[in-house]
Amino acid sequence: LVIVGGDDSNTNACVMAEYYVAKGEPLKVIGVPKTIDGDLKNKYIETSFGFDTATKVYSELIGNVARDANSSRKYYHFIKLMGRTASHITLECALQTHPNIALIGEEAAAKKQTLRDIVEYIVCIVVRRSALGKNFGIVLIPEGIIEFLPDIKGLIKELNALLATASEQFVTLHTDEDRIRFVSERLSPEAKQVFCMLPREIQAQLLLDRDPHGNVQVSRIESEKLIAQLVERRLKELKSQGKFNGKFSSMCHFFGYEGRSCQPTNFDADYCYSLGYCAAALLAAGKTGYIANIRGLNKPASEWQAGGVPLTAMLNIEFRKGKNVPVIKKALVDLNGKPFAEFAVNRERWALEECYLYPGPIQYFGPPEVCDRPPRTLELELG
Amino acid sequence: LVIVGGDDSNTNACVMAEYYVAKGEPLKVIGVPKTIDGDLKNKYIETSFGFDTATKVYSELIGNVARDANSSRKYYHFIKLMGRTASHITLECALQTHPNIALIGEEAAAKKQTLRDIVEYIVCIVVRRSALGKNFGIVLIPEGIIEFLPDIKGLIKELNALLATASEQFVTLHTDEDRIRFVSERLSPEAKQVFCMLPREIQAQLLLDRDPHGNVQVSRIESEKLIAQLVERRLKELKSQGKFNGKFSSMCHFFGYEGRSCQPTNFDADYCYSLGYCAAALLAAGKTGYIANIRGLNKPASEWQAGGVPLTAMLNIEFRKGKNVPVIKKALVDLNGKPFAEFAVNRERWALEECYLYPGPIQYFGPPEVCDRPPRTLELELG
Repeated sequence: LVIVGGDDSNTNACVMAEYYVAKGEPLKVIGVPKTIDGDLKNKYIETSFGFDTATKVYSELIGNVARDANSSRKYYHFIKLMGRTASHITLECALQTHPNIALIGEEAAAKKQTLRDIVEYIVCIVVRRSALGKNFGIVLIPEGIIEFLPDIKGLIKELNALLATASEQFVTLHTDEDRIRFVSERLSPEAKQVFCMLPREIQAQLLLDRDPHGNVQVSRIESEKLIAQLVERRLKELKSQGKFNGKFSSMCHFFGYEGRSCQPTNFDADYCYSLGYCAAALLAAGKTGYIANIRGLNKPASEWQAGGVPLTAMLNIEFRKGKNVPVIKKALVDLNGKPFAEFAVNRERWALEECYLYPGPIQYFGPPEVCDRPPRTLELELG
Repeated sequence: LVIVGGDDSNTNACVMAEYYVAKGEPLKVIGVPKTIDGDLKNKYIETSFGFDTATKVYSELIGNVARDANSSRKYYHFIKLMGRTASHITLECALQTHPNIALIGEEAAAKKQTLRDIVEYIVCIVVRRSALGKNFGIVLIPEGIIEFLPDIKGLIKELNALLATASEQFVTLHTDEDRIRFVSERLSPEAKQVFCMLPREIQAQLLLDRDPHGNVQVSRIESEKLIAQLVERRLKELKSQGKFNGKFSSMCHFFGYEGRSCQPTNFDADYCYSLGYCAAALLAAGKTGYIANIRGLNKPASEWQAGGVPLTAMLNIEFRKGKNVPVIKKALVDLNGKPFAEFAVNRERWALEECYLYPGPIQYFGPPEVCDRPPRTLELELG
């Protein structure tokens, strides 16, 4: 049995392998690392397949939008990129396209940034660009950013508790206005401040769209629109105070599904072929509970080294649903790693100048440096 | 002077050329056909540059989303495509990708379809697909569809008149509820029925976002979301009547800016090079008031024929701002043409089966049949 998937699927592969060994069953289980999110990665696994293809599709589109922005000079494009709990995709796309702004969820969490901090950071760059006569730009936003922010986390926690205890009263309220007022009156001062900062339709959305457990669905919030709206509102304030005299128009995008099922890049096709071959070889050798791994992915495919690693080597103990369980840890963006450092050292210049790169469409026929290139983050990590 | 643009820019090129001739000035003016919308097209101009590139980028993305839909089998993807007044882009993308549903604005207008008709058409296919166990699909929607529908046109006209005459009273209303009620009470029964059919946030949007002349901005309506919501609402009704027992989840996309400033396809690069050469040759020959034209675009580039056509040959008299003026006519999708016929004869099968094509990324190095292919509509028109 070959299980192809991310951290959870490979954790399950490990559990199943152990189970069949314990039962004395001959079934062998081998895992293969697959996720566009890029978060199944550790000292054994250099990357997962899918990540290169998805980020190259998104980077092509970001480059196109950047060229359009730089030509029409009218809009700030707020582009949300897939990847819920980790910002690998955004970091890779930022390195491939050099946007004016890219938010990294892990950094926001590490610095305990609030939604207001994020908005102020963007506003500051908009104002500085405007002083240079540039009322346009590219902003990359990782899908999960909102959930990383401590103030939003606090608000959501209070809302969930409030809606659970006051649900009988709450369901009798029939207009958005009534629901919003009801909630505002009952939140703590800190949470109330955050809630009141949100645009009205986001407030309404939070109170209406709840999951089957009655919890607020923060993932449903269109964070790119929320952030764009808050930036706009703040710029209006600054304008009325005479601190901003530029123009600001935003355009929102979400690049997600269009990067999940595309023709694979040569890198991913080679990598996937190698992983499949490797998984078959591990099974043929009678191994179970291993994950196929290929090393040296920054070199040409002919020099890659295939092998297998026991899945147990990747397990960490995490506390889930009230129990300590061994799971493969999701890799977050390493704020001390070389890819983030490359981004951090350049972002100030990218913010004010137009250093946009336009990677163009994925190519299959042509020179290897065009067609076979690995992800930029991988080059930096291994190079 | 070479003017590169669509119908309006080339009309202006014509007017300028006449002006300089009349003044006895030596300045020569030559036009070049450029628009992704595909609506500068007539018996002299086979296509405009930009159309092939944009539609190939969109078709790649539609193909990717279709593969994802066919794999996860969970969502209806409602994909809005750029192109305000004509549906050429949607038709070309439909021919390149074979979606389950593609709406063509010109057909809706010709058949005097209402918003309800459009919704019923989609609902009917969703129900039939559901009976086959398929609760997923791809729906293409041209950006301007809403404005083609006679019922929406009527509503907008009444709203504009109402908001102009009752503006003093209207501005005193401070909640969406009040504004919606105020308007509902004053519309004609027909318009009221259409207005009441719209989801609440669209009603609110229509009444809030108005242009500097106080007119309702119908182009701001997110028509893909509107249609998806109305389909969902109708399916809920059918479910409660026991006429539908499938699942329906929608996902909305807008593919626009990412197709406007991309690396050109080989077809567009060759075409553009030829147009530039041709424009220069026309100027060198002392011509003015001509548009560069290249013929035989369905053949290999080496067989194309370059020439020039007097812009006056393309002028039609249109009534604009109270005056009859000569302008180049926007080409609409020809419902009697071969591309539409190809679509119409296949759409029933595409609706129920998964005939999706996945064109993949634009290629530059490789066999001409992969790299140099003209738009499908052009092949059908000229072939």
